[in-house]
Amino acid sequence: MLQKHSEGKTVNYIRPEINAMRGYVPGEQPKAGEAVKLNTNENPYRASEKVYAAIRKVADEGLSRYPDPIADSFRKAAAQRYGVPQGCILCGNGSDDLLTILTRTFISSGEILRLPCPSYILYQSLAEIQGAKSETVFFNNDWSLPNSFCAASSAGTLKLAFLPNPNSPSGTVLPKERVLQIAEQLPCPLVVDEAYADFAEDNCISLLEQTDKIIICRTLSKSFSLAGLRFGFLFAAPKYVEAMLKVKDSYNCDSLSIAAAIAAIQDTDWQQDNRSKIIAARSVLVNRMRELGFTVPDSQANFTWNTRNDMPVKPIYEYLKQHGYLVRYMNYADWGDGLRISAGTPEQTSECLSLIEKAVLRTAR
Amino acid sequence: MLQKHSEGKTVNYIRPEINAMRGYVPGEQPKAGEAVKLNTNENPYRASEKVYAAIRKVADEGLSRYPDPIADSFRKAAAQRYGVPQGCILCGNGSDDLLTILTRTFISSGEILRLPCPSYILYQSLAEIQGAKSETVFFNNDWSLPNSFCAASSAGTLKLAFLPNPNSPSGTVLPKERVLQIAEQLPCPLVVDEAYADFAEDNCISLLEQTDKIIICRTLSKSFSLAGLRFGFLFAAPKYVEAMLKVKDSYNCDSLSIAAAIAAIQDTDWQQDNRSKIIAARSVLVNRMRELGFTVPDSQANFTWNTRNDMPVKPIYEYLKQHGYLVRYMNYADWGDGLRISAGTPEQTSECLSLIEKAVLRTAR
Repeated sequence: MLQKHSEGKTVNYIRPEINAMRGYVPGEQPKAGEAVKLNTNENPYRASEKVYAAIRKVADEGLSRYPDPIADSFRKAAAQRYGVPQGCILCGNGSDDLLTILTRTFISSGEILRLPCPSYILYQSLAEIQGAKSETVFFNNDWSLPNSFCAASSAGTLKLAFLPNPNSPSGTVLPKERVLQIAEQLPCPLVVDEAYADFAEDNCISLLEQTDKIIICRTLSKSFSLAGLRFGFLFAAPKYVEAMLKVKDSYNCDSLSIAAAIAAIQDTDWQQDNRSKIIAARSVLVNRMRELGFTVPDSQANFTWNTRNDMPVKPIYEYLKQHGYLVRYMNYADWGDGLRISAGTPEQTSECLSLIEKAVLRTAR
Repeated sequence: MLQKHSEGKTVNYIRPEINAMRGYVPGEQPKAGEAVKLNTNENPYRASEKVYAAIRKVADEGLSRYPDPIADSFRKAAAQRYGVPQGCILCGNGSDDLLTILTRTFISSGEILRLPCPSYILYQSLAEIQGAKSETVFFNNDWSLPNSFCAASSAGTLKLAFLPNPNSPSGTVLPKERVLQIAEQLPCPLVVDEAYADFAEDNCISLLEQTDKIIICRTLSKSFSLAGLRFGFLFAAPKYVEAMLKVKDSYNCDSLSIAAAIAAIQDTDWQQDNRSKIIAARSVLVNRMRELGFTVPDSQANFTWNTRNDMPVKPIYEYLKQHGYLVRYMNYADWGDGLRISAGTPEQTSECLSLIEKAVLRTAR
């Protein structure tokens, strides 16, 4: 990895922070057809055909021209659908792009990012890339969040906090009154990552009118079944949107995804139907996993979090993988491990549960 | 822009570097059909139909699943097409994404980015966002680059240099022997931005075998007529690609663009035909603009750079805009202004030149 410099010393030119970091590793992505994927919370159903019609229309019109840098047509449609002013909306190349833009807009090198644990591991990588520090606060046993999450940092200036709600891997939700309390107590803005909010009973959009310290991130990857499209959006006070426009790449969203995203959020019938199916599969998963001896918190997302103390769960993950079912084995330092299982079709869910039953019997022996 | 903090002092939470910067402003993007766009170096022809067929195929297959995080299918195709090992290839959401990733991989806060002037204004914004400093070195009058471009910085540690080749706005090229010399003299890696190289007589790919200090960026926006798709790629030593994989967003390229990009680079017949047409229009532009009294350097890109001392050129830009033709008026501090005009179809080019002739006569009066 090192090369000889002309003076004889070895240099590799890469920033020390990047050399030192391990890098975020996304969930396994086997080739199509090689496995049933219940490991990355993708949606098992095909997106609305209106989305694909919009994509074909853009292909007919052509892609020679640059897209609208701020995707105003989407912002207008989202303002209508979500009842949020257009100036409060920013679009991204997936919500990962938005989380990156947020980190780069608010946190300088050496400053602090606050995040709960266990939650989305990527947040820590974002801080590392920025040369910032991250401070994790563990959830309580009942998946509530202690007040220490809101305290100033002793290690530096706390500049941003991330809170996935519903959380991953737990699928649990903090009530919005509690989210508002956290935002008001924090000495910095709070990013509520609502990647899974469409599967929950409520969301935090109404809080935007009460405080400009809350920023809400959304994605089309989960509840719109468009993980392959890369499109996300966020709601924030206009002053923050304006700052983030300076940080984002000029043309961060392509013409196909902008048109597809508009069609997606406007097809509320598709989404209602899809939501019902996912919630039904989630219920089956939660109930059966509890019968099989797992501890499973109530989930408001499109997945469930499954732990147990009487036997290791990694062999169960491995057994499933051998039999063509991928779930996510997660092991959090100083906390523990478990299996995160996405809601699939009824057939996938049922087959996965049968395999888990067999694996539990094998492992218990 | 400021809000009251609970203690009574005003804070806005945004990083001071972001508050201070102006933000990169991309070229004007009128709605389709509202103007002939010769201002952002887009390609006036429709991309290969094989590209659109690939997009429709992905739409048929669906977008529920995440894309391949590193777009290996494209890397394999690009390795074949360009004769560069697969491990040397990194894909991005447009080459802007790659320029951002490069900046974040190599330059820490307070360090130095070197760039020539006049060139792509975005480079400076990238340094600003990173909290880094940029140092510009002016091209010589003949568009060669002085050796001071390679010198260590007195203001901090020089960590990366950007060199567009062909350059924008000039369209001029440094011979690859000179690029190699610059790379070897620099105390840091050199990013050769080859956005326009497909319109040039040569490129720097063969230099990759001679030094790992050269990194080459490519885009599908110009020579593949896919600005609306957002896809770029770069060639670098594997150690740099590995570091950049840690910095990029996990799924920075979507499934549609990966499939489209493979089809694009494989259709060499389309590109050869397109290249001939663009170069023909460029010749017409260069010759006629010289006849009309402009100074026009020989261009190896899909645009020309037009200056003159005997009259202001901004009124010409404004006259063209009033008549439905957008060209790019550029004004560089401490250097001067000019018109950058993209090669259009024969009809667009001819009509634009007629309008310029009229504008020159009006302005000369």
